[in-house]
Amino acid sequence: MTAALPREFALIGRHFRPLAAPAGLELGDDAAVLAPPGGRELVIAADAMIAGVHFPPDENPARIGQKLLRVNLSDLAAMGAAPLGYLITLAAPHDTSDAWFAGFAAGLAEDQARYGIGLLGGDTTATPGPLCLSLTILGHVAPGCAIRRRGASPGDGVWVTGTIGDGALGLAVLQGRLADASGRLVDRYRLPQPRLGLALAGIAAAGMDVSDGLVQDLGHLCRAGGLGAEIETEAVPLSPAAQAAGPDWLSACLTGGDDYELLLALPADREPALLAEAARAGVPVTRIGRFVAGSPVVAVRDAAGRAMAFGRGGWSHF
Amino acid sequence: MTAALPREFALIGRHFRPLAAPAGLELGDDAAVLAPPGGRELVIAADAMIAGVHFPPDENPARIGQKLLRVNLSDLAAMGAAPLGYLITLAAPHDTSDAWFAGFAAGLAEDQARYGIGLLGGDTTATPGPLCLSLTILGHVAPGCAIRRRGASPGDGVWVTGTIGDGALGLAVLQGRLADASGRLVDRYRLPQPRLGLALAGIAAAGMDVSDGLVQDLGHLCRAGGLGAEIETEAVPLSPAAQAAGPDWLSACLTGGDDYELLLALPADREPALLAEAARAGVPVTRIGRFVAGSPVVAVRDAAGRAMAFGRGGWSHF
Repeated sequence: MTAALPREFALIGRHFRPLAAPAGLELGDDAAVLAPPGGRELVIAADAMIAGVHFPPDENPARIGQKLLRVNLSDLAAMGAAPLGYLITLAAPHDTSDAWFAGFAAGLAEDQARYGIGLLGGDTTATPGPLCLSLTILGHVAPGCAIRRRGASPGDGVWVTGTIGDGALGLAVLQGRLADASGRLVDRYRLPQPRLGLALAGIAAAGMDVSDGLVQDLGHLCRAGGLGAEIETEAVPLSPAAQAAGPDWLSACLTGGDDYELLLALPADREPALLAEAARAGVPVTRIGRFVAGSPVVAVRDAAGRAMAFGRGGWSHF
Repeated sequence: MTAALPREFALIGRHFRPLAAPAGLELGDDAAVLAPPGGRELVIAADAMIAGVHFPPDENPARIGQKLLRVNLSDLAAMGAAPLGYLITLAAPHDTSDAWFAGFAAGLAEDQARYGIGLLGGDTTATPGPLCLSLTILGHVAPGCAIRRRGASPGDGVWVTGTIGDGALGLAVLQGRLADASGRLVDRYRLPQPRLGLALAGIAAAGMDVSDGLVQDLGHLCRAGGLGAEIETEAVPLSPAAQAAGPDWLSACLTGGDDYELLLALPADREPALLAEAARAGVPVTRIGRFVAGSPVVAVRDAAGRAMAFGRGGWSHF
């Protein structure tokens, strides 16, 4: 008999095989086979995204694919790593259309070209629940040069790339809670810009990406380093669109998720090196506070020097 | 303020951090950092499992964790690779209990010890849908020695490890469609035994694991190699429990999923080498047919030499 191929194989052949990197063996084997880059360490992370939790169920499928890839690329950026390839597992409702898969793959194809990577493998299955995606990203870094969360010292500056809060406000716009004629906030929520390409080894003493809210994520750096931090709200870089939202949205900017900027601990004597590297890469960087000795507490002071309190420190998916 | 840690961080710290390999950095960073084994190629695969699709929703959580790990280990075994580590993403319903997570992690811990690997990273999130799991496995192999699906030649024998059909019959037992006093069939469905540790490089001309049904998966080897295959049903090794189910269940054995045995193409002059290696590893191997020139058709003949036909070639998750 000729074994009739079920729909999952047709989907893989039509939409995902064209995305395969050479190491992905055309997605036709049980696994990918990859010669690791010589003299480098591997950097590996995985993130999941669920329809209705991490993105609206009716989101453009190309944007879903790109966001899934980019939130993982942001984890590589946080470690100072360069991307190598990725695997996807995708559990989709039975009635997911071929056009949806085509759009999803088109978004991945666009970003594969942008970031110079390819698909290594994965799995496609059906689910009675919402669309559930998982992506594993592989990258590489010079041995010993990965940026870790631990490593900040009292006196180091707290620095961020780009602007903070646009992603959280973009979600508020999508939910009809905020207006933004520019469209920039929604763009930032939909399509993070992973801060790849900054050579931070030997410059940043510690770092991570801001994905769950600036205050909560700074708390992670504090706990990892066994110290506290103070930030000044007026120093936190806000985009023109976030500034236009007004002071009522400041708290959302500081605690909302989906920034995908880098948060760094920087010894004072390395500020010139960071500024030079940031200028070379065309990435804005801003000092927003300092690390201090003591318990892992993040103190947030407003323009008048008053301590601010928040109902929650960040965005949790559980 | 002290950023209150949401439940996902508590879950990770309590249940998953103890599973972390050294390269997993205690799951406290944005990614794992791994020095690849010198002079080896990496082998990487990912598989997803959904409650109600791949396992019963009330399945013992330890068994879910073990099966998730083992189906991925089976992909490494199919390539002739040795395991290195893994990442998990887990989307769980909001009401998932702490005891469930503890059981799931205990199953992983048991198999980590069995297979000598550790957790590298992942993601935990909530979903309004069913439990949705994804695991990415990393392994390594000597350069050029990965077993591929392509490579079979006309005249090569079709070989399998172990016994075929127990997993599919085990599912039938769980569904109340079949009785099995021995409990062996359900055990095989619940806990695959990945065939790691067979040194097949230079012996098998092609191979894969049998996960979606023998006939369908043999069809994959045929398409990859551009040839056909013939198998004799009386040569297919069945366990005592599968034999006890009787001839009505033969078709289910040949086309059902969840075997996680290896399916190999073996040139006749390498039979002694395979038999010696199988004896060394303590893994039964059986010749069930041959590859033939022609179109990628799998011919299945019964004990009387008659061609058998099946309604479907295997098990699809879509």
